[in-house]
Amino acid sequence: MPDLKRLSIHQATVMQQWNLRQAIEGTARAGLSGFSVWRDKLAELGTKEAAKVLDGAGIAATGLSFAGLITSADKGEAAKALDEARRVFDEAAAIKAPSVVFVAGGVDPRDKDIKAARARAVEGLAKLVPHARAIGVKIALEPLHPMICAHRSVLSTIKLANEWCDAVAAEDVVGIAVDTYALWWDPELEQGIARAGKRILAFHLSDWLVDTQDLRLDRGMMGDGVIDLKGFRRMVEKAGYTGWDEVEIFSARNWWKRDPDEVVRVVKERYETAT
Amino acid sequence: MPDLKRLSIHQATVMQQWNLRQAIEGTARAGLSGFSVWRDKLAELGTKEAAKVLDGAGIAATGLSFAGLITSADKGEAAKALDEARRVFDEAAAIKAPSVVFVAGGVDPRDKDIKAARARAVEGLAKLVPHARAIGVKIALEPLHPMICAHRSVLSTIKLANEWCDAVAAEDVVGIAVDTYALWWDPELEQGIARAGKRILAFHLSDWLVDTQDLRLDRGMMGDGVIDLKGFRRMVEKAGYTGWDEVEIFSARNWWKRDPDEVVRVVKERYETAT
Repeated sequence: MPDLKRLSIHQATVMQQWNLRQAIEGTARAGLSGFSVWRDKLAELGTKEAAKVLDGAGIAATGLSFAGLITSADKGEAAKALDEARRVFDEAAAIKAPSVVFVAGGVDPRDKDIKAARARAVEGLAKLVPHARAIGVKIALEPLHPMICAHRSVLSTIKLANEWCDAVAAEDVVGIAVDTYALWWDPELEQGIARAGKRILAFHLSDWLVDTQDLRLDRGMMGDGVIDLKGFRRMVEKAGYTGWDEVEIFSARNWWKRDPDEVVRVVKERYETAT
Repeated sequence: MPDLKRLSIHQATVMQQWNLRQAIEGTARAGLSGFSVWRDKLAELGTKEAAKVLDGAGIAATGLSFAGLITSADKGEAAKALDEARRVFDEAAAIKAPSVVFVAGGVDPRDKDIKAARARAVEGLAKLVPHARAIGVKIALEPLHPMICAHRSVLSTIKLANEWCDAVAAEDVVGIAVDTYALWWDPELEQGIARAGKRILAFHLSDWLVDTQDLRLDRGMMGDGVIDLKGFRRMVEKAGYTGWDEVEIFSARNWWKRDPDEVVRVVKERYETAT
């Protein structure tokens, strides 16, 4: 059964309506205790002030999105991207977010070589482990939908995420973020989640709308699409996950246009009835 | 090396500019000898007249798109969809198209059960085999991109296509259509194509644009995107494929707005330089 104590509102769900302070306060006003932070919003407020607002409101930062985009074929660019990722880890530590979502990066149009991009991502990831370990932040590899493989993430399946975890061999630091929207179509989802097991560091909930109109910003509220979210939750819990359930709905045409308190109210309701 | 003798223009590439008669004549005018037919356009012209136009122009119908959409949870609807698919096979036979592209169908919003949808697709497919066999038409299962899984096709990977081929056990009738745009992102593409081997009945070429703006109608001309099309062709040929290379570019914002003779000219050029 869904437990509101585990529900976290992801900034993406109220991205257009609330800045970070407003979102934290709105989450507290709704009687919830977890909020998942988007890095651009954190930069606006500053990590120190954000930590203070979170503490004051009694809200836990359940995660920080995101670090990554490290697949450049240019070595200088790739090194810069790694430095930037390390800064994101520092920010997560500052607001006591347990993990950072890792978005690999896309295919470099200069070499059009998806295998090479994947190899570079794993190689870069391994270089990020020591710093993350040193400051006590975990790296949550998020397999993303194949439709954003070209420009955003060459990590397209949970099977591949498991393979990357195997490759970097840093189970104390590197795990997986499971996102219903990104993974629901996968014929090998069940095996992938079972194999991930304790590697699962985050669980992101939203739904897939049949009439999806955009590749990134048209996610659906739980219950409005075709994902079997109750079954999905069962798989993740069977794998041993007991952490936060983060509701992450990028929705330019619908939820971003609504009153954010109302959006959070609907999230709470659907969390209980549709997941 | 690409051989223009194997190049087929798919109706989708000139969907907005040419009806079937015009497209066949335009293909012949370009010195090519293959054309892949879209069913709605065939219905406009009629199969008898289409067969006559193809013969007169010296153009082979290399395939017919499509039959399928048989995943309904309603038994009556599913039976009707199977009858409709058999009619498509008859149409293919009438224009001497060797195979029909099979598009499975999506997830039924009434049960939101993707596993059940996949099971129904395989079950329905098996029922289609006898008629296809009787009239000498092959069924080319086309794994489509996961982004159209909900409303169009639950067959999302070449691995799953191979499993469906195994399940129906009708190698003389059921094979696979390999589409670069649908499959390029798959971490297990190479194994899947190798395993498909002689099952490959069709090869569809187009490119993935980094700034893709639509889930169905924004494919790129070969060379304009990030797919390693030369490597892809090598994989398919290594698997033993010697059939037609069908260029299928749904492109509402670009190629459908251009002079169709010019589009075909660019297709010929890119076929030779970028694939």
